[in-house]
Amino acid sequence: MIESHSIHVNTKGHCDIINITPQLEGILSKSKIKEGMVNLFVSGSTASISTIEYEPNLVRDIQEALEKIAPEGKKYHHKETWNDDNGFSHVRATLMKPGLTVPFRDKKPLLGTWQQVVLLCFDNRSREREITVTIMGD
Amino acid sequence: MIESHSIHVNTKGHCDIINITPQLEGILSKSKIKEGMVNLFVSGSTASISTIEYEPNLVRDIQEALEKIAPEGKKYHHKETWNDDNGFSHVRATLMKPGLTVPFRDKKPLLGTWQQVVLLCFDNRSREREITVTIMGD
Amino acid sequence: MIESHSIHVNTKGHCDIINITPQLEGILSKSKIKEGMVNLFVSGSTASISTIEYEPNLVRDIQEALEKIAPEGKKYHHKETWNDDNGFSHVRATLMKPGLTVPFRDKKPLLGTWQQVVLLCFDNRSREREITVTIMGD
Repeated sequence: MIESHSIHVNTKGHCDIINITPQLEGILSKSKIKEGMVNLFVSGSTASISTIEYEPNLVRDIQEALEKIAPEGKKYHHKETWNDDNGFSHVRATLMKPGLTVPFRDKKPLLGTWQQVVLLCFDNRSREREITVTIMGD
Repeated sequence: MIESHSIHVNTKGHCDIINITPQLEGILSKSKIKEGMVNLFVSGSTASISTIEYEPNLVRDIQEALEKIAPEGKKYHHKETWNDDNGFSHVRATLMKPGLTVPFRDKKPLLGTWQQVVLLCFDNRSREREITVTIMGD
Repeated sequence: MIESHSIHVNTKGHCDIINITPQLEGILSKSKIKEGMVNLFVSGSTASISTIEYEPNLVRDIQEALEKIAPEGKKYHHKETWNDDNGFSHVRATLMKPGLTVPFRDKKPLLGTWQQVVLLCFDNRSREREITVTIMGD
């Protein structure tokens, strides 16, 4: 069996990190599929999906780590193409990739107690993001 | 068809990298599913799964690369939340993500000869890790 | 339903980034499966798959970001094992992982307009790469 759903999120950009576990749990609990794998995928090339212990200080730590890897203030060649200032957003998104696949059982994701699924929005402006949620299993 | 299994591993933390290919191959060889994709997912927010040519010097190279990306000795904001000293572990795990999906055929993972599936444990102490192995296919 | 296909690509190495979206779209359009998830996986331990807005300046930005994370010129312990000079290639591949899972509907991948699926070849020489494309769905 297969089901396709969406999660919509408003983001502020600049490494805004949003907990989407409640939406994921809601979709799985109403699904006809009890057990399998669920893929979350954000279309667009300036965002990513991962997991984190979702607490504000760790969110800051991730933001600082990504600022070190691909700083906002650096000059990116991408600016020469469209005069866009979001080269750093693209670099972070390509490194972290746009999707994540999570197993589930009894209609619940098999996450740790301190592990939440998050959307990371790397763009330099606010966005409305759509995450495709594809459920496969029995 | 779908099957769900587990791999249990004892880790030492501090970027302990463990080859779990033998366990994965064992599970696939005994499965009723011949061809498809297998997802490996570690619950918890301080570990990851990837592939590597598993040899001790490359393991050291990865450990040094991750030490550069998120150093153990740095001060992390996460400490202010729980007084935990494993901020670096969380940052590494969020950047590298908790799962990996591998194709298989004839009950064997389609890995390269010099490519092994590994668990990376980033925590600052020894742990018993559970990896959920979800097999889907025909 | 499940289908297994391959994409073959000749690469130059040294962070050669190749757009494989046309090949992926071709495979999906001829598939009997209309909706589901497609996994792309490159065997070998010196390449990765991700998404990017595929334009030459952003390709250079990614190459520079990876050069900062795992420089070509650095000494890697891996050299002591086989006298290989591609330690940097392995480190980049383990950090970025060998696969990606993308949802599709109406036989088309659910990518953004400015989002292409790419193979990143990190090796220090030209290679012929095989990407396994596993399609599951209805």
